[in-house]
Amino acid sequence: MPASNKRIVLASRPAGWVSEANFRLEEAPVPEPKDGEVLVKNLWLSLDPYMRGRMNDVKSYAAKQEIDQVMVGQTAGEVLVSKNEKYKKGEHVLASFGWQQYGLSDGKGLTKVDATRVPLSAYLGVLGMPGVTAWVGLLDLCQPKAGETVVVSAASGAVGSVVGQIAKLKGCRAVGIAGGKKKCAYVVDELGFDACVDYKAGRLNDDLKAAAPSGIDCYFENVGGEVLDAVLRRMNPFSRIAVCGLISQYNATDPYGVKSFQSVLVNRIKVQGFIVSDRMELWPRALADLSSWVASGKLKYRETVAEGLENAPKAFIGLLKGENLGKQLVKLA
Amino acid sequence: MPASNKRIVLASRPAGWVSEANFRLEEAPVPEPKDGEVLVKNLWLSLDPYMRGRMNDVKSYAAKQEIDQVMVGQTAGEVLVSKNEKYKKGEHVLASFGWQQYGLSDGKGLTKVDATRVPLSAYLGVLGMPGVTAWVGLLDLCQPKAGETVVVSAASGAVGSVVGQIAKLKGCRAVGIAGGKKKCAYVVDELGFDACVDYKAGRLNDDLKAAAPSGIDCYFENVGGEVLDAVLRRMNPFSRIAVCGLISQYNATDPYGVKSFQSVLVNRIKVQGFIVSDRMELWPRALADLSSWVASGKLKYRETVAEGLENAPKAFIGLLKGENLGKQLVKLA
Repeated sequence: MPASNKRIVLASRPAGWVSEANFRLEEAPVPEPKDGEVLVKNLWLSLDPYMRGRMNDVKSYAAKQEIDQVMVGQTAGEVLVSKNEKYKKGEHVLASFGWQQYGLSDGKGLTKVDATRVPLSAYLGVLGMPGVTAWVGLLDLCQPKAGETVVVSAASGAVGSVVGQIAKLKGCRAVGIAGGKKKCAYVVDELGFDACVDYKAGRLNDDLKAAAPSGIDCYFENVGGEVLDAVLRRMNPFSRIAVCGLISQYNATDPYGVKSFQSVLVNRIKVQGFIVSDRMELWPRALADLSSWVASGKLKYRETVAEGLENAPKAFIGLLKGENLGKQLVKLA
Repeated sequence: MPASNKRIVLASRPAGWVSEANFRLEEAPVPEPKDGEVLVKNLWLSLDPYMRGRMNDVKSYAAKQEIDQVMVGQTAGEVLVSKNEKYKKGEHVLASFGWQQYGLSDGKGLTKVDATRVPLSAYLGVLGMPGVTAWVGLLDLCQPKAGETVVVSAASGAVGSVVGQIAKLKGCRAVGIAGGKKKCAYVVDELGFDACVDYKAGRLNDDLKAAAPSGIDCYFENVGGEVLDAVLRRMNPFSRIAVCGLISQYNATDPYGVKSFQSVLVNRIKVQGFIVSDRMELWPRALADLSSWVASGKLKYRETVAEGLENAPKAFIGLLKGENLGKQLVKLA
């Protein structure tokens, strides 16, 4: 048995931007599994923007993160000790053990995965919640037709990068919006988007018009703020917007006022907020598609990896600032 | 044959608020019907908020109103001379002849109506475009279930008054938002809404919370601006918003910034902009319901009537300022 379990708890709620002082690293004894229980060594921790919302003391779609409790989060790990006949030592499992090195389970909430065909970490990204989120928001909500223009913000991130690639697979024009030349080059050159607008270049409206000359039929929204306003001004009649995230607003003390809402009326836009966990019935179809595309090389992905649990807060703040390319992970062991 | 046809044309495009100076009253010869044509004497002109959008020089869902041309609008009138075998002198017809006393048609675009069972003017209101708009937005888009809370803004207007009454017929809690005590009293006491929030009273958020204690499941949006923000803060998970109008913004030079857009994500709201003319296939079902409810006294309506074509501009400005109760009409003869 390992000596201790390092874990990160929420020390205080942020007012505005998160800082490392909002987190606290603790050590606790590694729990001893009883009959029927499984001890898992977490190898990977997923960092996701939704975690910022949990840190607030407000009503949201999920229970808020309690102070002094281990930060929530999905993990991928390996069974270390099993007193449950369904699991064997050495098997790989997904779980929601949060920001810590070890997790104890009665067997519920664990999903076995095959880490021989794809790397274990992929189950937290392209073949996990972010990948399925992209599939559901684009194919179930936006329902793009071949030839239509699909725009996605945070295009180089874990979700956005999948959205644009699926749009291409469906015969659409895929336009990304991302911050900086490096991300835009990645999106176009490596992922195969038709165009990418660098919102940091200061010409958002003009560049978006040039990138989507026939207007926008589907918008997959990850950021909100000025980007949403710019996109609303270019939406076509009967277009669709899947609202998956509004990351530019998560640390805002004074929320951005959306000025072009009238486009929703004039263009009869359907806007749908969604959380992928509301659509569990679609996961098998989504995962089948995603796995097949990854296997055949049609769906590419990247990871940004922070080393060690103690670097999770810094990496999380970096994620909220857009410093990652692709899926942000923490390698725990 | 009458001596002349008075008509009102668009003299200039408004920058911000419309004024009477944007219109011009003209006189022209009454057109002489040729073979196959019908001359109609317009008895009623419908004034509707959408007309404000047509006056702008911007892309919208309909062709813009051209300068020096007769203002667009729906009319109800009586056949004066018919050289078309499908129409007889004295028959009542709906048409889109606009702001003028007479209209000439080749028979297309006319709809015969029976003015013996309900007054002719009702076909421009509760049994016309506004009534069908209410039916489509509430029943087809919002799809309220019995027991849910339905909120409608501009609740005493031609559309809003029908929305709330249909909500009651479907077993919902109906909450109106209107400007002033008189309108709110009308909405509750005469139309049977459960509650009404007077947005001019200065306690919009608190009053809305009190009127919708279980949150809001369906919102029928007619006004936009601060009212939309207040409603967004009270929307329930999986709620629906039908965006029918944004009248508070039609004369705004600096559009209101919607601050609570994040509620769309957090509550997974479906927001759908719509124009009733996109849903022509639903008109027969809607009109069957509306006619039956009016005939049985379950659906009440009121009209605000301006006398004479020359008063149409003033009445239209009053409509945009919320001075009407129920359907705003101009009695032309």
